[in-house]
Amino acid sequence: MIQSRTLRVDYGMTTSVVYVVGTELNVNPSRGAPPSSKFFSVKASPNVNFTVHSVDSEIDMIPPPPLPGICTPPPSRIPLRRLPRIIHLHPIYVIENSVLSITMSSASEEENDSKLSISYYDENQVKLEEAVVHLTAVEISLDVDADRDGVVEKNNPNKGSWKWGPNGHGAILLVNCDCERTYWKRPDLEQRLISEASDIEDMSLMVLRTRGPAKLPEGYKLTMHISQGDGETIRVYRFKKGAKPDHDTEGLAEYPLFLDSAALSSEVPYSGGAAEMKFYVEGLKFLDKDFDGLITINLSLLKPISKDVPETPIFTDKVVFKVAPWIMTPNILQPEEVFVCSTSDNSTFLEQMKNFVQKSGCHLRICSNYVSRGDRWIQDEMEFGYIDSPHQQFPVVLDSPRNRGLVDFPLHELLGPDFGYVTRVPGRKDVSSLDSFGNLDVSPPVTVNGKNYPLGRIVLGVAFPTATGGRSMTKVVQDFLRAQKVQEPIALFTDWLLVGHVDEFMTFVPAPGRKGFRLLLASPDAAYKLFKGLQKDGHGQAKLFEGVEGEKPVTVDEVLSNDSLLTQNKYAQSCIDWNRDVLKRELGLVDEDIIDVPILFRPWEDAAKPRAVAYYPDMVNMIVLGKNLGIPKPFGPKVNGRCALEAEMCSLLEGLGLSCTFIDDFTSYHQGQGEVHCGSNVRRQWFAFKWWNLEM
Amino acid sequence: MIQSRTLRVDYGMTTSVVYVVGTELNVNPSRGAPPSSKFFSVKASPNVNFTVHSVDSEIDMIPPPPLPGICTPPPSRIPLRRLPRIIHLHPIYVIENSVLSITMSSASEEENDSKLSISYYDENQVKLEEAVVHLTAVEISLDVDADRDGVVEKNNPNKGSWKWGPNGHGAILLVNCDCERTYWKRPDLEQRLISEASDIEDMSLMVLRTRGPAKLPEGYKLTMHISQGDGETIRVYRFKKGAKPDHDTEGLAEYPLFLDSAALSSEVPYSGGAAEMKFYVEGLKFLDKDFDGLITINLSLLKPISKDVPETPIFTDKVVFKVAPWIMTPNILQPEEVFVCSTSDNSTFLEQMKNFVQKSGCHLRICSNYVSRGDRWIQDEMEFGYIDSPHQQFPVVLDSPRNRGLVDFPLHELLGPDFGYVTRVPGRKDVSSLDSFGNLDVSPPVTVNGKNYPLGRIVLGVAFPTATGGRSMTKVVQDFLRAQKVQEPIALFTDWLLVGHVDEFMTFVPAPGRKGFRLLLASPDAAYKLFKGLQKDGHGQAKLFEGVEGEKPVTVDEVLSNDSLLTQNKYAQSCIDWNRDVLKRELGLVDEDIIDVPILFRPWEDAAKPRAVAYYPDMVNMIVLGKNLGIPKPFGPKVNGRCALEAEMCSLLEGLGLSCTFIDDFTSYHQGQGEVHCGSNVRRQWFAFKWWNLEM
Repeated sequence: MIQSRTLRVDYGMTTSVVYVVGTELNVNPSRGAPPSSKFFSVKASPNVNFTVHSVDSEIDMIPPPPLPGICTPPPSRIPLRRLPRIIHLHPIYVIENSVLSITMSSASEEENDSKLSISYYDENQVKLEEAVVHLTAVEISLDVDADRDGVVEKNNPNKGSWKWGPNGHGAILLVNCDCERTYWKRPDLEQRLISEASDIEDMSLMVLRTRGPAKLPEGYKLTMHISQGDGETIRVYRFKKGAKPDHDTEGLAEYPLFLDSAALSSEVPYSGGAAEMKFYVEGLKFLDKDFDGLITINLSLLKPISKDVPETPIFTDKVVFKVAPWIMTPNILQPEEVFVCSTSDNSTFLEQMKNFVQKSGCHLRICSNYVSRGDRWIQDEMEFGYIDSPHQQFPVVLDSPRNRGLVDFPLHELLGPDFGYVTRVPGRKDVSSLDSFGNLDVSPPVTVNGKNYPLGRIVLGVAFPTATGGRSMTKVVQDFLRAQKVQEPIALFTDWLLVGHVDEFMTFVPAPGRKGFRLLLASPDAAYKLFKGLQKDGHGQAKLFEGVEGEKPVTVDEVLSNDSLLTQNKYAQSCIDWNRDVLKRELGLVDEDIIDVPILFRPWEDAAKPRAVAYYPDMVNMIVLGKNLGIPKPFGPKVNGRCALEAEMCSLLEGLGLSCTFIDDFTSYHQGQGEVHCGSNVRRQWFAFKWWNLEM
Repeated sequence: MIQSRTLRVDYGMTTSVVYVVGTELNVNPSRGAPPSSKFFSVKASPNVNFTVHSVDSEIDMIPPPPLPGICTPPPSRIPLRRLPRIIHLHPIYVIENSVLSITMSSASEEENDSKLSISYYDENQVKLEEAVVHLTAVEISLDVDADRDGVVEKNNPNKGSWKWGPNGHGAILLVNCDCERTYWKRPDLEQRLISEASDIEDMSLMVLRTRGPAKLPEGYKLTMHISQGDGETIRVYRFKKGAKPDHDTEGLAEYPLFLDSAALSSEVPYSGGAAEMKFYVEGLKFLDKDFDGLITINLSLLKPISKDVPETPIFTDKVVFKVAPWIMTPNILQPEEVFVCSTSDNSTFLEQMKNFVQKSGCHLRICSNYVSRGDRWIQDEMEFGYIDSPHQQFPVVLDSPRNRGLVDFPLHELLGPDFGYVTRVPGRKDVSSLDSFGNLDVSPPVTVNGKNYPLGRIVLGVAFPTATGGRSMTKVVQDFLRAQKVQEPIALFTDWLLVGHVDEFMTFVPAPGRKGFRLLLASPDAAYKLFKGLQKDGHGQAKLFEGVEGEKPVTVDEVLSNDSLLTQNKYAQSCIDWNRDVLKRELGLVDEDIIDVPILFRPWEDAAKPRAVAYYPDMVNMIVLGKNLGIPKPFGPKVNGRCALEAEMCSLLEGLGLSCTFIDDFTSYHQGQGEVHCGSNVRRQWFAFKWWNLEM
């Protein structure tokens, strides 16, 4: 919608006005008319366009007269006998109820180089007085990449709003959460300055384009300004080419801070002629419960009144940005880097992992025991994700509130140039085992009842609130995940498990077919079915845990005759079934999309409340690198020299083109109530799909 | 979408299951099948319905067989030569890739009164084993008024979501912000109990309807539960007819507290047969920046596993409420009650107001000097609004952060039965004059570029951020107003005024025509035009302020020759013009909808920054009671014994059917930089339009 501005003129006076190209000036001729005037005519420089219409522009417009010198019929409410009788050089209009609209199509070369005059006439069309307007036209456009092609176009009509989807529009801002420095590692956004020129790559370019006379008329000025709320979520830096540092300069002199929470408004110098001034906008805050990510930057042209009174705004341009969400990467995306910890007791595991990762063509990064301080659960400490914009994208690690030996790893070892960091700190000390990110996963892309989730959906575990005192993922992290919007989270029931993580009973693997994946679910039922089959086939004396140091082997017959184990597993199965039904509904899955993996659980004796842990290595707790699966070696009963559990796993998965590698994590991870997945982490390629193309 | 639940059966076993009517049980026959079985058939009680379809229900459904005894063709992936050859009593199906879905259409009379059995056959269709299911069906429905007709209907399919508009759905909740007591006046929501039975009128009825056998099978139970976040925004009370208070009872024994932040989950007793249990849901928190008003209440059926392990949920029903917004009432709504203060020096004003209010057929409430503690600015202390739901509505006063003599008036004098109270307290001491509610108004209903605002739009004043240090309405109040959504606020520039309120330069009056109102704007231009006309007509020596005690009269000539006054008024006009352009754009107005009222401003000398106050009584600062306008008496220059400003005002407004009454507020209000509007407040009828019918 065109910006209209009220302009007041007075008969016998010359009014100088600055006009902004693209807006409209509205004059009410009756306001500046001398007493007893009834008609008016308008004369203007060739570059000044004007129309005359009714004050009630919604009802009747008076078309411009067809020929000069021919009088325009007045609006119908004026008696027709009042029709003017004398022919003038310009068409004349009835004053009453008329509005004069003025526009100009290009900037002025010099101040006041365009003119418009209004002549007033009495009822006999005798000229009484004149009001004169001197016009100075300027072009002002605050520009951003509203069409999301990586280039800041000129004056996009949609730059002032934000809309999702492939036909949407609106500029995008990244949270500047990486760190350009290799020392004093803190996210760049914590500094109120730019210390490295490369830092501007993480910000959004904003260009102020102006065109007009060499300088603005005396007293006029431009200011850029943001609201108090937006001041807490962004900073704006200005590019001053060739600026040299002075004594007080902090950061790079060429990129001085222009706007932030301490300076919500700053004057923008006007350069004259055709000028472009560059600004860089830095995001400070991720989407969250109280922040939808939309921010507005305004640019106003101020008009002086007199020395004693403040300037008044006469034109405001605005641009809108949205902060990019943090996005998780599901197992089906290609792996880039695998992380494991080296501890005093995991050399076997490490050796097998090295071979497995190498086979998968990935880079393996081993966190030393010195850095991890004995903490091997690198899955739990952090979740890899990324942020994306048309101009820049980089990985961002979400640091969990779980703070054990690896507490400093994300900040000290990962944060760096083009590697961002974000965390959420619970207000109270209400962190539980469910806050470890083994309890946080994301599905592959799905379609549910016609609704597309091209970035998948987040899966996390909570207490089912059937009783007070259940553990849940802490609210600040859940709020953060939900606020990202693009991977709408699903809450599963995991408090029945001692550790309480979703990765104890589920994972996703790539697979051919229209969905492109299968959901693997731990299944005590499948395990009992397998063991009963073994017993029936005469393998009741085959032993689990054979060859595991310090672990007493157990026969298939013993497993099947253990009633309390059966009870516990019926419970585990019912909990998994609840989650299965939720996942089917929320991910739009059918049974064929789900593979039941034979896993048994056992009660954890020491806990106040009986909760479940895996009885033998929990094969769904695997690492997925493309088509290669690194699976906890289950140490199941052997039939003809081959582990029946491994054989079952291969038969379930190899038909899908997947390759199973069994990794011995028994003493180093399984006995600590974790497995391969808990002890590893994977940074993956990000989605080709752009989040702003989502239909929301 | 139908809730599906995975049911596991085992050959040779009988499984007892509780079924909830309206859901579906899914059995994977292959899971419970004995080894080497290839086919199955199903037999069931007449009230048990079942279908057999492919595991991949998205691809092929197997229709139920046309006649009993005729075998169903297996899914195409089974080789056709495997077709069964023997005729059975029931149709038999291929086990592989089959799913059996079970439903029942009504509740059981007794536990396990319905049965279903699955027979398994080998490849020669010889029966091997059987799995039996005993079914107990219950009907469970947690019900609310999702269709918004004031009645809690049964099992509305939309009860679990919320949608705006006349074709929308979703239950509504009020914040219980009134006070049933006449002593210890605090909003009811601050009590964790119901002290008066009338309090339940302010809550939303929720009904749990159940039907089934006399009791649930051993160990099954129902629980109602809410999330931690929702626990901070609602409470649920249960109605226990005839319950008697005991020693520990707080509040009414018939309405015990059932759920709140301290008890997020509670067991619901099951009554057997057809039962209805009533609950009352109380809203605790208004919509705000961090609260969109949506809350969910869940009801789960829990299944016992064994003594040692917790129950598992097997069915969850849920209902969604949205908290009603706080709604302001514009001038065009009929007045109900007018508030003014009695002070030691305002008897003239009070007498004239009494007559004016009486003439308008309204009730006048006078706040004594004792209660107001000398504070006469009752407009500034509070804003009247209301909350609305299909079952209840009442006025709610928004108490401003401005805390002067009237600080306790809203809480002590207004809060009461069916009269609510809400306030927002700024975190820091950043309250300015712009936080008084003379700076808060609401427009009549408008349509802007095709978008309807049937409840109008809020108007409030802020600093135009052209320089740091400007005053603005405090963020917590702005956030609150914005969060109500239904009257999307417009921010105007008011910091140019000493007091800084929107009511210093604008008001709305009812008027005939398609919009139903006019916007009145203070206009220095109109004033100068009027005074120049007077001078031209020979009234240059007519005096303003004649007859005002202690005020020196000033002639029209003196006004017109005062250059600094002219400068100040050009500034004032440019500020008002900025606001005029914003209001035209944001309210979809044309010039004809706006009336310019002749008002002059003067600089306030003492202020550090020159800011404007009204030069003579500010006529737009009026009270609007239907078609009667109570206007500050301007004490303008007299022409033929009549005040030219009053005459102009009448000529502008009487043609619209409005009646002007001029009220002398000069010494009692005008000299204190306020006028009639600042010194009064009006509680009005609310909109006939229901906010939930908005299209958002």
